[in-house]
Amino acid sequence: MAKILAINAGSSTLKWQLFLMPEEKVLAKGLIDRMGMRQSSITMSVNDQVVIKRDQDMPTIAAAVAAVMNALKESGVIHDLTELKGVGHRIVAGGEVFSESAILDHQALAQVDALAEYAPLHNPPEAAAVRAFAHRLPRVPQVGVFDTAFHASMPAVNYRYAIKQEFYEQFGARKYGAHGTSHRYVASRAAALLNRPLNELNLVSMHLGSGASVTAIKNGRSYDTSMGFTPVAGLAMSTRSGDIDPSLVLFLMQKLHLHDPQKMIDILNRESGLLALSGLSPDMRELQAAAPNNPDARLALDVFNNRVIKYVASYLAELGHADGLIFTAGIGEHDEDVRREVIAGLSIFGVKLDEQANRDPHGETLISTPDSTIPVFMIPTNEELMIARDVMQLV
Amino acid sequence: MAKILAINAGSSTLKWQLFLMPEEKVLAKGLIDRMGMRQSSITMSVNDQVVIKRDQDMPTIAAAVAAVMNALKESGVIHDLTELKGVGHRIVAGGEVFSESAILDHQALAQVDALAEYAPLHNPPEAAAVRAFAHRLPRVPQVGVFDTAFHASMPAVNYRYAIKQEFYEQFGARKYGAHGTSHRYVASRAAALLNRPLNELNLVSMHLGSGASVTAIKNGRSYDTSMGFTPVAGLAMSTRSGDIDPSLVLFLMQKLHLHDPQKMIDILNRESGLLALSGLSPDMRELQAAAPNNPDARLALDVFNNRVIKYVASYLAELGHADGLIFTAGIGEHDEDVRREVIAGLSIFGVKLDEQANRDPHGETLISTPDSTIPVFMIPTNEELMIARDVMQLV
Repeated sequence: MAKILAINAGSSTLKWQLFLMPEEKVLAKGLIDRMGMRQSSITMSVNDQVVIKRDQDMPTIAAAVAAVMNALKESGVIHDLTELKGVGHRIVAGGEVFSESAILDHQALAQVDALAEYAPLHNPPEAAAVRAFAHRLPRVPQVGVFDTAFHASMPAVNYRYAIKQEFYEQFGARKYGAHGTSHRYVASRAAALLNRPLNELNLVSMHLGSGASVTAIKNGRSYDTSMGFTPVAGLAMSTRSGDIDPSLVLFLMQKLHLHDPQKMIDILNRESGLLALSGLSPDMRELQAAAPNNPDARLALDVFNNRVIKYVASYLAELGHADGLIFTAGIGEHDEDVRREVIAGLSIFGVKLDEQANRDPHGETLISTPDSTIPVFMIPTNEELMIARDVMQLV
Repeated sequence: MAKILAINAGSSTLKWQLFLMPEEKVLAKGLIDRMGMRQSSITMSVNDQVVIKRDQDMPTIAAAVAAVMNALKESGVIHDLTELKGVGHRIVAGGEVFSESAILDHQALAQVDALAEYAPLHNPPEAAAVRAFAHRLPRVPQVGVFDTAFHASMPAVNYRYAIKQEFYEQFGARKYGAHGTSHRYVASRAAALLNRPLNELNLVSMHLGSGASVTAIKNGRSYDTSMGFTPVAGLAMSTRSGDIDPSLVLFLMQKLHLHDPQKMIDILNRESGLLALSGLSPDMRELQAAAPNNPDARLALDVFNNRVIKYVASYLAELGHADGLIFTAGIGEHDEDVRREVIAGLSIFGVKLDEQANRDPHGETLISTPDSTIPVFMIPTNEELMIARDVMQLV
């Protein structure tokens, strides 16, 4: 029995879950919000009961980490921090350095720092959280679990862009993908549900949330994925453009008189996607409510589904055959309309939805009919558990 | 019986064919090369026999047009230029203005001028050629045949990008596609080969040349296409990147210290694609010759085929069912290896290649087996004939 902390640190939030392993039981979870800003707050719950909720000044990540530790002790879920056998950290960009989860010693942390140019908003706060924990708990191993690592198995034909070799060799210009921990988790669950070894399975997993990606999984390993050099590529997302003609980026910069590429990157990440197409909202539920009377909202929904369908179809062709399709993440788990329309768009493959199961899934659910050529699953993702599992394996 | 001239004017070349219509017989064809440069030349052939071939100074498009007319008279294929019943011009960018071929009067020509921002290297010389012909032959109708027009039937779900509405409304930022005249021509030929009305057919046509695009055709009309706002998007091409993460464009500009977006556009158009991936050549045959001993050449070929397969698969899903697949243009017509590998990559759809027919097609050829779920055709394209047909219909 071991207690493992799984950490997801962003630029202004820090989420955590405390697991008892190998039981995979969640002992506590919490959130620090508005870190480094005014009115920062900490919330913690045990068995879904809020046990701590208060405003507290946390000007730095180190202060937030200290607050997490105090909360764990104060609430009694941990008596002595030496009970922690390891802390796992979600890290967004692992580049070509990290093809799997790794103990974050000084050298590995320096590599996380060096990879910050691929995730300038994410890697720095994540590395800061690792350092804060390492400083407070010098004997507890810190483990990095990388969003990109699962996709390290992609073949060159899928990760290389048709641009100069030197752009790849000198600047690392290639597809890295993201959401790897989620795709890996739901793939492992699909294998369990199919009662077959993961390394014999071809799957297409759809992680559909405010960020969204589709992954082709061949023999249990990532073979292709819709996100690219950055998470802005691929599907149309809540506020991200997904794929657009690369020269359109430059045309728009000229039209908008933008001289700073960063401004354009911000527009593509924060002011595009469903929000931009609808002119209304980045939120799928709000768009669905508005769609009957709002053609722009309807268009945004149609574009979302259309891009998912096209990616899944292209990946089914790449795989040659598939043993399962998986919906996960906020939209994938909770939006029966998206699931219905995506499966309808895949009718050429003989995939058939079980309408009843799709309307009312409970936890992990098979939502295809018995005569569907490919079983379709709704599987709630659990990146925190995957982090805890990786920590257990490494410590 | 009417004589129709079909013109394809580029920035430094002017190609033409003279047709006898409605017989669709080619009376003569010719090429002006290095227009506006030193050592410009004119070549003309009748029944595939060269009848004129000489260096000639042609500093302007107007001079080139005069040379074409003189050549037609000198060779005797036309006695009096009033025999011409119409001149058809390929125009690259028709934007949202031209959804079909059109008589180019003063007003329409002004619109072609205005659309130059979508094709700065193409629309201006094309408009200049139209004006030169109109000046010399004021009573002969000039007709514009637009690369984009066939794609005007695409639904918004496919032509809109997930970017701000105002970028579409104010700047025309949407997918226009290209190669429309070619896709339209081969679709009409597929209907003839299938002996069915085109407007009942769903087809996926692959125009694979140094520029390359895939089009989904639903009930005879373009429903989706791989080229985008410009012809740089979609497939990996000889020297064009095709789709890449839009933020990678901006990352590369920063890394290369490029301040002028036009430089980046040039790199994506002229220094990318198969040439860039292989580091060797933009030419498919050279890459195939090198591939056994050159992993980079092999990778370039694999990327080319992979992207075609993924687009075709996504379009088959969009269409729900398809009545035919079509290969055309330089690579599509002449490269049995590409056809074989693309069809192999579509095995999930039950498409099966007839190896013998694929190795040695003669003209329009069915290259799939009788038990293939979808018939596959190799159909030589003929954009010039399509132009002549459109002129006949309009004059």
